[in-house]
Amino acid sequence: MDYMNLSTFIHLCHDQQLILELLDVMSATKLQECRQHISAQLDGVVDFWLRHSHDAEYGGFFTCIGRDGKVYDDLKYVWLQGRQVWMYCRLYRTLERFHRPEILEAAKAGAAFLRKFARMSSSSSPWKCAFCLTRDGKAVKVQRSIFSECFYIMAMDELSRVIADQDMQLEAEQMMEQLIYWVQVDPSGLGRPRLPGDVATNSMAVPMMLLCLVRQLTEGRDHEAAQKYRELGSWCVAQILQHVQRAGTAILENVSESGAELPGSAGRLQNPGHALEAGWFLLQFSAETGDKEIQKTAIEKFIELPLEYGWDREHGGLFYFLDVDGHCPTQLEWNMKPWWPHCEALIALLMAYSQTKRPELLQRFLQVYDYSFSHFPDEKNGEWVGYLSREGSTVLDFKGGPFKGFFHVPRCLLMCERLLDDLLQMHDE
Amino acid sequence: MDYMNLSTFIHLCHDQQLILELLDVMSATKLQECRQHISAQLDGVVDFWLRHSHDAEYGGFFTCIGRDGKVYDDLKYVWLQGRQVWMYCRLYRTLERFHRPEILEAAKAGAAFLRKFARMSSSSSPWKCAFCLTRDGKAVKVQRSIFSECFYIMAMDELSRVIADQDMQLEAEQMMEQLIYWVQVDPSGLGRPRLPGDVATNSMAVPMMLLCLVRQLTEGRDHEAAQKYRELGSWCVAQILQHVQRAGTAILENVSESGAELPGSAGRLQNPGHALEAGWFLLQFSAETGDKEIQKTAIEKFIELPLEYGWDREHGGLFYFLDVDGHCPTQLEWNMKPWWPHCEALIALLMAYSQTKRPELLQRFLQVYDYSFSHFPDEKNGEWVGYLSREGSTVLDFKGGPFKGFFHVPRCLLMCERLLDDLLQMHDE
Repeated sequence: MDYMNLSTFIHLCHDQQLILELLDVMSATKLQECRQHISAQLDGVVDFWLRHSHDAEYGGFFTCIGRDGKVYDDLKYVWLQGRQVWMYCRLYRTLERFHRPEILEAAKAGAAFLRKFARMSSSSSPWKCAFCLTRDGKAVKVQRSIFSECFYIMAMDELSRVIADQDMQLEAEQMMEQLIYWVQVDPSGLGRPRLPGDVATNSMAVPMMLLCLVRQLTEGRDHEAAQKYRELGSWCVAQILQHVQRAGTAILENVSESGAELPGSAGRLQNPGHALEAGWFLLQFSAETGDKEIQKTAIEKFIELPLEYGWDREHGGLFYFLDVDGHCPTQLEWNMKPWWPHCEALIALLMAYSQTKRPELLQRFLQVYDYSFSHFPDEKNGEWVGYLSREGSTVLDFKGGPFKGFFHVPRCLLMCERLLDDLLQMHDE
Repeated sequence: MDYMNLSTFIHLCHDQQLILELLDVMSATKLQECRQHISAQLDGVVDFWLRHSHDAEYGGFFTCIGRDGKVYDDLKYVWLQGRQVWMYCRLYRTLERFHRPEILEAAKAGAAFLRKFARMSSSSSPWKCAFCLTRDGKAVKVQRSIFSECFYIMAMDELSRVIADQDMQLEAEQMMEQLIYWVQVDPSGLGRPRLPGDVATNSMAVPMMLLCLVRQLTEGRDHEAAQKYRELGSWCVAQILQHVQRAGTAILENVSESGAELPGSAGRLQNPGHALEAGWFLLQFSAETGDKEIQKTAIEKFIELPLEYGWDREHGGLFYFLDVDGHCPTQLEWNMKPWWPHCEALIALLMAYSQTKRPELLQRFLQVYDYSFSHFPDEKNGEWVGYLSREGSTVLDFKGGPFKGFFHVPRCLLMCERLLDDLLQMHDE
């Protein structure tokens, strides 16, 4: 019996205890299979980026990498530079088989490039970073948002942990102070003019990223560090929870600063991948704080609900964007199936299952697993493609592009491998 | 024999004179059919916007209009406000059956809304316009480009012609002076910081739009007006011609200021719809100036060439974006079939055929005509949908959105109707 027949079995069988025992045995076998596959995938993905993305001449990483591994544009996107440094360090620090000198050296080279070139000398703030650099580090574009800086902080903090560099850790914290100021006090330093019709908005991405950074800066550190960011963490969680709208039946991507629904397409926008990512951020928060209410909300509202409305019943996969009232979203890519929401769904579902052992969460994990591994990986050339049509064919075949780098796929594979190891170990005990 | 069999016939028959005579008779019948259909479509499209887009309460036009004509967002996009004013006036001024009071009144109401709200009081220039307004006219977003202003100028100039308002005409010309300064002297007033890695670029859209405005401001006016913008017109044409690259085998969307190919994805980008639109702008310029060399380049390089590489041989229709070296473009929508390049292709091909009577141009027109009219019009609710999948199914079903309004479809239908009338009249004579 495979896990699909399992689903039928669960519906037919009324002995709950029997179900749980059977599931336990069968899921262990299935999970062992998944674990092997995920682990092999992670090796392949790391290998792909080690081979194709390092710029030995100018430093940093090429981020625009074609299907076959060749660089098709030598622009260097700062989000992706920061993410790659972070990812290398996280792998180096947490999985024995990636504790290899070439991975650490690559991370250090990436961080050196970022420190040398990412910050904009022309900005009014010494912490504003460019969005995109030339191969030799000259600023090409700057965004009027906080995300280049977020990934810079992640990179510096994670590397500072590996090489025990307190100056680097301090730099991350100082940039964090600037971010907090831009978000909570005055955003004018970001360069976007405040316009009379532009309602102040709570966009999901902002409290999500800040919560992620709070965890980054505090995890495993002493009480003082945790204390310093505790209030900010709670503020982020409250801001994220404001996105539960319509009497708990929808997660909306943009709400007003006071948590009310906004008018128009922007107010009705749903981004299932973001909701799922926020879901596992909240699960981590609840695990740290022991807040069971947050755990319940994370699973029901940020994980199960977006999977319900975000999953395409006709062709499978998660939609990029939806409109809560069923209007057509105005984003041209709305019905595409991008890789990263599937990565976030895999982490969220496996983490939720680990914490609760509710079999329907495992079943959902396996559904997303099947779709993801049968659609995204490029078995021939390595890595995953990023953007599928609604029907599931590859529309953009590059492995790295302006928003796709060495981040969502390996983070997902790393976290799932570790979650599966823990689950399987519990089963053996 | 229909025009598809005609194609076979042309290939088989070696008597060129006979072909031309036969074509002439047969194409007249086919063109008469097209003319009737296009004319009926134009009536339907005008009716759709008259019925659904007027905001009687706050003035101006709703621009986000769903499949069934209902407003799904009350934001007012300034490009689309300006384009709608222009289009109403052009219809009113040039086709007898649209010389109706309600069309003029709507144009005047739209222009009043624009004059009251579009210009940004907070900008350093009194001419900078917002990109998007709330229903009651408060600025929501501003772009760091010249296009809101371009469509403002088109609106004011065209309305000034209808109502003989010299102040309004002067306002258009003053804003034009500001645009020319931003483009040719100093762009800093647009608000985009000049970054060291950001190479100054000649993007096709800029000289195209300015050439369109030169024609708008001078057509039918006295010698002095023509004289004033003559040099600018020639400059625009030279800038457009810089986009012919790779020994005449490709039109590239972005080139350096000196007309050299740029590196990376941006340098290799092709936008067949833009090339085709530039094609008919150049044809108009060549007709005015009698420059046969420009006419030849317009047809061969800006019309036939983009149709060749931009047409999807598998599913039909024009791609949104392509990469000249066959890499995957980084635009997620690259393989969609948007409505507007098909509108531009119809105008370009019919104008080219009118000027040359080359039968293969008519044949190409009929090919694009067939694709367009079998895919875009919504026979039930009126108007056209805007964005199809590569395979030709509707992906976004709204009639008006942030970039689709009352402009490309009616402009195409109006111009084709008039071109067909002239062609048929010549045939009768």
